[in-house]
This record gives sequence, structure tokens and C-alpha cells, in this order.
Amino acid sequence: MDTSRGRPRDSDADRRILQAARQALLTAGYAGLAIDEVARHAGVAKTTLYRRWPTKDHLAIAVYADMLDQEVPVTDTGDVRADLSAYLKQIAGALDSVRRAGRPAHDTDPSAGIVAELVAAAARHPDVGEVMRGLYRRRIRLAVELVERATERGELRAGTDPVLLLDQLAGALYYRVLITGAPVGDNYLERLVGAALDGALSTKEQR
Amino acid sequence: MDTSRGRPRDSDADRRILQAARQALLTAGYAGLAIDEVARHAGVAKTTLYRRWPTKDHLAIAVYADMLDQEVPVTDTGDVRADLSAYLKQIAGALDSVRRAGRPAHDTDPSAGIVAELVAAAARHPDVGEVMRGLYRRRIRLAVELVERATERGELRAGTDPVLLLDQLAGALYYRVLITGAPVGDNYLERLVGAALDGALSTKEQR
Repeated sequence: MDTSRGRPRDSDADRRILQAARQALLTAGYAGLAIDEVARHAGVAKTTLYRRWPTKDHLAIAVYADMLDQEVPVTDTGDVRADLSAYLKQIAGALDSVRRAGRPAHDTDPSAGIVAELVAAAARHPDVGEVMRGLYRRRIRLAVELVERATERGELRAGTDPVLLLDQLAGALYYRVLITGAPVGDNYLERLVGAALDGALSTKEQR
Repeated sequence: MDTSRGRPRDSDADRRILQAARQALLTAGYAGLAIDEVARHAGVAKTTLYRRWPTKDHLAIAVYADMLDQEVPVTDTGDVRADLSAYLKQIAGALDSVRRAGRPAHDTDPSAGIVAELVAAAARHPDVGEVMRGLYRRRIRLAVELVERATERGELRAGTDPVLLLDQLAGALYYRVLITGAPVGDNYLERLVGAALDGALSTKEQR
């Protein structure tokens, strides 16, 4: 998965492969992603595809990386409560569209769908896991900077650990999508941000 | 997966099957779980096993349900900070042993292992998903009661949403295990509980 070494690749072929794979994933789901079909749609030899992405798991995570890279960056309006809510709503929207991929529009099953398959793909192959963790490190960095600026301007308490705060927020969201199947609507996300900012202790116990 | 309907089952055979499957999962990992082998070790016909658990995913979640049911319940010492930390440490310990199943003892790869495979199994089959969500509903209920008692005695602010607080805590833990691969040691878990209780807002902004 390292793009910096080895023979130069045909980036146009890569592009066509990723587009065909994305199309397959979004219309037919993980079970519907077939490497041979993707090669045919992209007009490349199967060996070309396998050389670049040796398994379906490798190909799927590449599609996911490609989707995340195209997303809107974090916005900083100077109001950390609003900015964190907007950030979470963006993640929730993206997760929901990946989660629903390949399923009927009115499907009410709370299944995590492809989100769960990607998590399993990352757990099965050390190199796929490294790609996924790298993706999240890059994404989280933008939000960490948002939290750091809010701390600098005194909105958040001095010494706030940005990663810990983001773990609570993004973590609750992924936990609902992947584990409990509970909904993550806008109202929930706003309450979540409020809970993480205000804390659960009663005022008399507050440090 | 409904145990209340259909023909009466041989619960002794079920027990032997679950033990053999658990042994296979814990020593060989998800990839090493083979239904035919489990049937042979349990001394039952393959058709018996398939009638009860039609796929490897169904069998694996049954093993997981069985493991969770045997765990220590939530303890309530009257100090919510200590009790929530103890609760999270227990979950982290259980997750870590499932995560490492089938891998060499000194393996440092942060892979979520079987935890991720179980999440994907639940996403692939609506009935497996229902079993997993039911498992978590039952587990979470004990912790919800812990939070409610801390709210009643005034330790937590009135109106604290127990599910939201537990989403922040367990969510951060699962997010690290499944997504970012960051460690979840005791020190992290204590800081996490502190962050959720104290909130991130600076004192002057506190509501």
C-alpha cells in the first residue's frame, strides 16, 4: 500500500479502478464487490489490479481513503460548541451514506454495513490496518487543531487533551453505528457535544 | 437465534459446540474457526450444528454472548468516578483478550482482531445484529443503573443522561480498539472518566 516505492504506476488506471470499485461498493455493498468485475469495468487486466491491491479488503480501504480525502475540511467559526457539532454532523452523514451503501433506500435495519466490513478488513491485514489508522490520524489532526485554538482563546479549560475530547465525541458516534445501532441524529450530536463540554458532575462536585 | 421457539434442543450438545467453538476462536482466531472442525470436536453431526447456527458468523456471536454472560457484574461503591473507571477497565480487559485471540502472545499489532470480525458478522446478518445489540442492551442496563444512582445521590448533575455518558466512555474505548488502534491502558481510562465528569469547558464558560 506504500505509494512511494516500487515501479511507477499507471495513475490513470488506478483512478479508473477506484471509480469502478467505488461504484460497485456503493450499489452492491461489500458482498457485491468483485475484483474481476472491477477490472473489467475499469478496462484493466486482473493482474494489474491484483498487483496494486492484492485482496478485496485492500481495494475497499483504498476506495474509502479516496472518499475521505475528498471531504470538506473542518471549519472554525470561533464557537467551539457549534464547530464540534458541525464536525460530528459531517462525520455522521458520511458514515450513514457508507453504512447504507448497497441497501434499499428505505431499509430500516440499523446494520453498520460496509463501515463494519472496512473495520474488519483493517483488522485482517496489518498493512490495511496501517492505511486505515493513517487515514484517521490525518483526519483527526484538523479537529485537534480546532480544539487547541478553542483552548488557547480560553473557551476550553487549560490543559484540555484534544485527543481525549475527540475520542469521547467521535467514539460515541462510532459506538452507536458499529455496536448499539442507536441513531445519531443532529439532536443527539448536539447533546453529545454539550455533555462532553459541560461534564456530568453536579456543580458542587465540579473541580 | 430465538431460543424460545422451535423444537426443543439438546442443550448438552449446544454446550459442547459452544465450548469447541470458543476454543477454536481463542486459539486460531476468526479465520481458524471452521464449522466442520467444531462439529467433530463437539461430537455432533454437522447438520445439528448448521440447524442451530447456520453460518460461522452466527456461531461466533453465540460464543461471544456466552463469554459476556459469564462476566463479573458492575460494582457500586458509591464513588462514581471509581466505579466508572472499574467498569471501563473490565470492558477493556475483556476486549483486549478477545482482540488478541489466535495471535502470538507478544504480537504488538494494534489490530482489533476478532472484535472487528464480530462487528462485521453483526452487520452482515440482521439476526446476528439483533443478538449483538440485545447483548449490549443488557450489559449497558447495569451501568445505566449505576449512573442513575450517582445522579440520585447528587454526585452527578440532575438530568444526566446515563446512555449519553456511557456512550462517551465505552464509545471512546471501542473507537480506540476498532478505529485508531490507540492504547486503552488504566491511565487512559481514568483520564477519560475524569474528562467526561469534569467537562472540557473552562470554569468561566461552565453552564
